[in-house]
Amino acid sequence: MTIPTMSVEFQRNGFNGVHSSAMPIVHKLSKDHDLVLKTFRLLIADLCQQFNGGHPGGAIGMAAIGVALWRYVMHYAPHTPGFFNRDRFVLSNGHTCLFQYSFLHLTGYKAMTFEQLKSYHSDRVDALCPGHPEIEHEGIEVTTGPLGQGIANAVGLAMATKNLAATYNRPGFDVVNNHTWCMIGDACLQEGVGLEAISLAGHFRLNNLTVIYDNNQITCDGSVDLTNTEDVNTKMRACGWDVIEVANGCFDIEAIVDALEQARSSKQKPTFINIKTVIGLDSSVAGTAVAHGAAFGAQSIRDMKTAYGFNPEHFVISESVRQFFQGIPERGEQWVQEWNQLVDNYAVQHPDLAAEFMARVRGELPANWQEYIPISFPDKPTATRASSGLVFNPIAKDINSFMVGTADLSPSVNMIWPGKVDFQHPELRTTCGINGNYSGRYIHYGVREHAMAAISNGLAAYSPNTIIPVTSTFFMFYLYAAPAVRMGALQHLQIIHVATHDSIGMGEDGPTHQPIELANLYRAMPNLLYIRPGDSEETAGAWIAAIGAKQTPSIISTSRQTLPQLAQTRRDGVAHGAYVLSEAESATVTLIGVGAELSFALEVAEQLKVQKGITARVVSFPCQRLFEKQSLGYKRTTLQRHRGIPAVVIEPFAPNGWERYADAGISVTRFGHSLPGKAAYKFFGYEIATLTTKVASYLERIQGDQLLRGEFVDL
Amino acid sequence: MTIPTMSVEFQRNGFNGVHSSAMPIVHKLSKDHDLVLKTFRLLIADLCQQFNGGHPGGAIGMAAIGVALWRYVMHYAPHTPGFFNRDRFVLSNGHTCLFQYSFLHLTGYKAMTFEQLKSYHSDRVDALCPGHPEIEHEGIEVTTGPLGQGIANAVGLAMATKNLAATYNRPGFDVVNNHTWCMIGDACLQEGVGLEAISLAGHFRLNNLTVIYDNNQITCDGSVDLTNTEDVNTKMRACGWDVIEVANGCFDIEAIVDALEQARSSKQKPTFINIKTVIGLDSSVAGTAVAHGAAFGAQSIRDMKTAYGFNPEHFVISESVRQFFQGIPERGEQWVQEWNQLVDNYAVQHPDLAAEFMARVRGELPANWQEYIPISFPDKPTATRASSGLVFNPIAKDINSFMVGTADLSPSVNMIWPGKVDFQHPELRTTCGINGNYSGRYIHYGVREHAMAAISNGLAAYSPNTIIPVTSTFFMFYLYAAPAVRMGALQHLQIIHVATHDSIGMGEDGPTHQPIELANLYRAMPNLLYIRPGDSEETAGAWIAAIGAKQTPSIISTSRQTLPQLAQTRRDGVAHGAYVLSEAESATVTLIGVGAELSFALEVAEQLKVQKGITARVVSFPCQRLFEKQSLGYKRTTLQRHRGIPAVVIEPFAPNGWERYADAGISVTRFGHSLPGKAAYKFFGYEIATLTTKVASYLERIQGDQLLRGEFVDL
Repeated sequence: MTIPTMSVEFQRNGFNGVHSSAMPIVHKLSKDHDLVLKTFRLLIADLCQQFNGGHPGGAIGMAAIGVALWRYVMHYAPHTPGFFNRDRFVLSNGHTCLFQYSFLHLTGYKAMTFEQLKSYHSDRVDALCPGHPEIEHEGIEVTTGPLGQGIANAVGLAMATKNLAATYNRPGFDVVNNHTWCMIGDACLQEGVGLEAISLAGHFRLNNLTVIYDNNQITCDGSVDLTNTEDVNTKMRACGWDVIEVANGCFDIEAIVDALEQARSSKQKPTFINIKTVIGLDSSVAGTAVAHGAAFGAQSIRDMKTAYGFNPEHFVISESVRQFFQGIPERGEQWVQEWNQLVDNYAVQHPDLAAEFMARVRGELPANWQEYIPISFPDKPTATRASSGLVFNPIAKDINSFMVGTADLSPSVNMIWPGKVDFQHPELRTTCGINGNYSGRYIHYGVREHAMAAISNGLAAYSPNTIIPVTSTFFMFYLYAAPAVRMGALQHLQIIHVATHDSIGMGEDGPTHQPIELANLYRAMPNLLYIRPGDSEETAGAWIAAIGAKQTPSIISTSRQTLPQLAQTRRDGVAHGAYVLSEAESATVTLIGVGAELSFALEVAEQLKVQKGITARVVSFPCQRLFEKQSLGYKRTTLQRHRGIPAVVIEPFAPNGWERYADAGISVTRFGHSLPGKAAYKFFGYEIATLTTKVASYLERIQGDQLLRGEFVDL
Repeated sequence: MTIPTMSVEFQRNGFNGVHSSAMPIVHKLSKDHDLVLKTFRLLIADLCQQFNGGHPGGAIGMAAIGVALWRYVMHYAPHTPGFFNRDRFVLSNGHTCLFQYSFLHLTGYKAMTFEQLKSYHSDRVDALCPGHPEIEHEGIEVTTGPLGQGIANAVGLAMATKNLAATYNRPGFDVVNNHTWCMIGDACLQEGVGLEAISLAGHFRLNNLTVIYDNNQITCDGSVDLTNTEDVNTKMRACGWDVIEVANGCFDIEAIVDALEQARSSKQKPTFINIKTVIGLDSSVAGTAVAHGAAFGAQSIRDMKTAYGFNPEHFVISESVRQFFQGIPERGEQWVQEWNQLVDNYAVQHPDLAAEFMARVRGELPANWQEYIPISFPDKPTATRASSGLVFNPIAKDINSFMVGTADLSPSVNMIWPGKVDFQHPELRTTCGINGNYSGRYIHYGVREHAMAAISNGLAAYSPNTIIPVTSTFFMFYLYAAPAVRMGALQHLQIIHVATHDSIGMGEDGPTHQPIELANLYRAMPNLLYIRPGDSEETAGAWIAAIGAKQTPSIISTSRQTLPQLAQTRRDGVAHGAYVLSEAESATVTLIGVGAELSFALEVAEQLKVQKGITARVVSFPCQRLFEKQSLGYKRTTLQRHRGIPAVVIEPFAPNGWERYADAGISVTRFGHSLPGKAAYKFFGYEIATLTTKVASYLERIQGDQLLRGEFVDL
């Protein structure tokens, strides 16, 4: 058995830039990788068997692909996992995580010891081998698992490279030129978010993106033919991708390497490599759905070992297999050093550009970013979607960190700054008159909300805070995007989602577009700021909070309709989540106002005084999550419920969760209605007179029925 | 100008079944439909101008398509809108609703008066012309608006026809043979849910489905080339569709009719008709994004009228245009009568089958359906996902109303009954060894959660309760499906979503698969029952509630892991949303238990007694929505908070909303962790000893700090 060595029998070229001179491992592409592949397959089978669970089949089928990637093709540095210009690898079929973990171990990532590898599916709380790859761990670029997300993340990672390269590379100084490799299974070609991302990647002509399809034709339910009989290669070509097929994907490492390097040198298109494999190869359940999500059983693994000529009772990674992967960390460090040298020289030749670039690498914004935010706003009725543009567009214009996108609602979301340039392949100018280039930072995502958010996760995951993606659409359509918004929150990625048309006040579009229950999701979602500002001043506060939240995504939830500017609002109040808008010594009720309906609370307070002689204090409550971070003292001082003053919240959303802060609520618990904004408010009882009456009669009721004081009352 | 008349110059054939003999309107296909088209375009322009808003452009561009459909091709009965065997029309680009409303008016739907037509975007609360089509109104098959949903609904409608036809048609008795027509714009080809549905429709070879693409190449942001440069026809063919192109779609009614009838007669595949149109044709903004979502302006419309030879100051639908659409209601009634006669004869020839069929038409289940549900269950630890199978599979086996699908999680969701037959095109047996036929009621949706739910909406919308779709996947992936689940709730469609792996107890798959905040969305969503049963008995209660909810979708939320059978659970308790599991006279605390963690509450109560001498009562709380429907008296008796007994809820979800029912909660406000189920519970503090300590110390704290009594406390 011949194990490829460090000898210089085979020199591959075909990629450009800093990496081209840095290939200390050159090698003979031997067809005889048998021992490595067999060892890898047994390793996976054993790790699953150890805990009698997990997903062995896919990882085993993909063994040869992994050897091609980690041993021969990918540029990375195991001892400098954060090497800025490394190739990015995304395991979109995240349940096959042992595939990645095992190669991280074999190629010398320090944290991924053999002991750690064995922690897969164990009780070990500090394990680096969770059931799906997690971004927190060395060598993992994005957290995957929910299918279709990874491929969209990969599109974002490739776009990040394109944008950074177009912005910072100069002749002789390709400071950013990495490739993105994405492994997928059948599911990622079925999930809508994957299909959206595929279409957009083809449009953007991301030739630095390669998707590797582990075509084993098996899903949980059985043969893919049960649910998918389409011609996938033709479909991918129709979407603007090059397609390469590899027939013998379980063994033919050379063909896979050829395909991968052909993909890396693609000039015009992303590449889809369709690799035929066998799930659970050589196990007793090879080629069947049973191989997907369960251990093979002790006897089956003993039989595999015997057939492979291994000791059936014992398993080791042999020294020759270790040798096969030797030298990879050193190769990586050489690339790191060459890149560092390149950047040093770049700093000499292009000092200003290099300074900005290195700040981006460190994830820093210009120190003066807050100075862009207007100190005050015109005192005229303004929709907060317009306020949002007033606050953010000057920042977006000047600070390259922000990449701003929309799911085909540019006219509605007000995110366009003067002179904005679209992120587009420059040749689209010739072929279809579309202006833009890869240094552009305005992204037309098309009507693809889910991919917009998932791609943004990829943009943000490229390197911490190097790119701060901004997305925008109607608030209701963040339900389409929700799985990806969640993945951003889970991964501690700073992404700013700008939502407009955020209440029944958006009007005629009706119940399909009027959010009633969506805020409940986002207020409950961990590590996410859902902020509903009430006027321009609060919108400034919302943006300050969102830009300041370096490890947390935000949703800034704005109105379609104009809102009055309120004298009492304060941007620093937003930072506290809730704050007193209007205090009153002898108040008998606190009115909580939120977002587009904040002014209603102030008006109701006034009418209560005028009409009923009732004194009300008013609290603005733009963000529950930020309020939760405040001290108990601040919370009590703000709400005053501990002094027995009941609080009534006014918000035309489902009330669930407001019970924590209020004793009663004027909420909406049915779907919306297609009516012009004002008429919709009237229809749902949000006219000042109606609101005033409801609050007053509630105050009467609780005087007569003390029991009600302990129960949340829907008014 | 020649207006097509009732004369017999042109007889079209090409479709089968009951309709073939029923074409009282036969016609000359004239190219000179000018007056009708111009009148229609001006009508749309005027209606938008009247309220200075709305979406005129698409509707105007599609005018000729509408004439082809409503005048020449579709089978429907304006005076019997619910005619069971009518063709279904879905406006997936729902913002162009005036297109549909205007044809409903012109073809004689009684409710759609000219006055109603003018209610578009008005303050009229009882309007039949909301901003997007709504299922409640005559002639509307499904509510659309969120893009991509309608095309998936259409796939469901076409599947419903296939299933009913395969089940009930007999030689000479095609009692169900309608066609489904779906109009889409560019967006439905970009949205993931649309792409998922397209792929599946091709796989299922739904030759009774035609998608008509209003190819105007414009979206809100501008040219489609901004975001989509793929070869759509090739992509559709790769997905298993026939493609027909129509070049001159604004005028060439004859070519459109030819294409539509060719589509209706397709033998093997669904048909995609790619029709080139001009958005806002003949307006001053024709062919631009501006035409999409705003009125054209008074002057522009005057100019259009002048150019068309109309009175620029006044608009009427001329008598000759009225005549063009005359006779359509009568034609429809003839079809209705022929169908009624057919069904009468069918009842003579096939009395048993006809009796079942007519019960299905009426949306009735067999009266004895509850008898299928086990009276008791084996007293052994059982995962509620398994309990769910025990309860429902016998029902699914015998009652044809249920069509049961899964997003590729058959091995996990336990929805397969003995002898189940897959819904598949029968020829797949030959081509790829897949067994099934269109009478099959088990649907492999593939890894397409969103389309699964959206297609289910279509299955359910075919006719009220004729089909009760059941979907299934992991609970977390109902976030992918959420926009469609919402559309089902909004449309009052009975659909039962069966979710498994519904808490951190699902274990190793980790935070991407562990729902923390998803229940918050579904508990807040109007008209939806989110039910978390705690054992087999409660699972029976959950199914009884879901099957009984004829106008409400349900989510039955089940556990991956085994749960003990609890002696105190009651299925009728589930019907009340919450009920007392264990009463105690002198209790000092109420423990609220839910679903997979219900037994924890009972165990904690026991430990509080044993260890601390604290008496606790226990309430099981499987469904907040059902509890809300109970009387204030029942609620108070159940919770006892009015007597000053504090309630503590134990559920490893985000607490938001429990504050209404409890004074404190042991909740989870961060994302999950990849650990085996028991270890995950331990990691998050859900061991009995830890829970007991937390409750006991809370009770101590509130003795010392009365202020806490008014505030929800996170333990």
